[in-house]
Amino acid sequence: MHRTRVRVVEDALDANTTIAQANRADFDRAGVKVVNLMSAPGAGKTALLERVVDALDGVRVGVLEGDVQGSYDADRLASLHVPVTQINTDPGFGGECHLDANMVRSALGAVPLDDLDLLIVENVGNLVCPAEFRIGEDARVMVCAVTEGEDKPLKYPLMFRACELVVINKIDLLPHLDFDLEKFVHNLEAVHPGIDSILVSARTGEGIEQWREWLLRAAAREPATA
Amino acid sequence: MHRTRVRVVEDALDANTTIAQANRADFDRAGVKVVNLMSAPGAGKTALLERVVDALDGVRVGVLEGDVQGSYDADRLASLHVPVTQINTDPGFGGECHLDANMVRSALGAVPLDDLDLLIVENVGNLVCPAEFRIGEDARVMVCAVTEGEDKPLKYPLMFRACELVVINKIDLLPHLDFDLEKFVHNLEAVHPGIDSILVSARTGEGIEQWREWLLRAAAREPATA
Repeated sequence: MHRTRVRVVEDALDANTTIAQANRADFDRAGVKVVNLMSAPGAGKTALLERVVDALDGVRVGVLEGDVQGSYDADRLASLHVPVTQINTDPGFGGECHLDANMVRSALGAVPLDDLDLLIVENVGNLVCPAEFRIGEDARVMVCAVTEGEDKPLKYPLMFRACELVVINKIDLLPHLDFDLEKFVHNLEAVHPGIDSILVSARTGEGIEQWREWLLRAAAREPATA
Repeated sequence: MHRTRVRVVEDALDANTTIAQANRADFDRAGVKVVNLMSAPGAGKTALLERVVDALDGVRVGVLEGDVQGSYDADRLASLHVPVTQINTDPGFGGECHLDANMVRSALGAVPLDDLDLLIVENVGNLVCPAEFRIGEDARVMVCAVTEGEDKPLKYPLMFRACELVVINKIDLLPHLDFDLEKFVHNLEAVHPGIDSILVSARTGEGIEQWREWLLRAAAREPATA
């Protein structure tokens, strides 16, 4: 009789991690790099994508749009002639406030992975739960608008710790705000020492070249290990 | 033998509703009106409270502050000499992205209900889940900053439907934004016809008198039925 013993290890992978690894394997197989883009509602994720997705120098980019309802952001991006796939967390997932690995997996059949070099996943606008769910991505980026106040890294530390880049958006509004940029950077360093950040305005285009270059580097990176 | 038959009714109350009703009964007993204040992160809930909590004409007001971590907002409000109680959803509740009836109940022992006429509960900054959990409040108010874009009612309809008042904040920034106020109001009416709204700037004080008057009316209302 053939017997196989399965040991349940102490740090057993939870379901989300298991599915994230399956996503990861599919991305690697197709040679696609994946960026998980997160922020509070209205911080400017879609506007930042509109600025760059058709200007990535031969990098074939696709977008996976996560929203509770509707396809407003997907419709905005579709006009830029990149493949956009919509996930709604409302009907199938009970109005979830974040994407998880299984929701992403459920959409992968509709994403032309073999035709892409870079897939950008625009998460549901929320500063809490998206940080808790890996989806098999290579990198996590968060967008924080200066209109949100200097205290956000201190109040939502997990989100600011979970990412490899913070895009500080809406800097064109700085002259009209009481926002103290130095204090924000200080708070950001306190929760995530050494984190990269870029100052941008999706409205005026300031800093967008740096954002574009960061995405080009992300697309060119060696495959991550699961 | 005495037998009691308990019928399980079809629309059985879930645990949150049951606890919300217990909160409601405590509020009624103490004669306290309760407002649940919700918004995305950084929309200006705390700034709007700073503007009015010490100017409510003899209405004794207290604040229950909901945050994932820290007590930054509570510290800001404490200087205004109103009783402030902090709930952190992180250590006890696993970093929840919203308040629910049980979290509020767990804090009520620290809230001097008998010394209050109005309790304002500042929810965790999030446009999704707070709308799903009643806490026993009389009224729900949401704050939406014009910096968040006109599409927010369409993308987060449950939140905009769940409230009795929308406070449209940061209107001092309108000259510096592409925000189309008419379109926002149109979207708001589409998801919640007839909803009350107030245009304010917590920064300049514009519209704050209307916000103050709304809170005075909320404090004077007849007790709600559970």
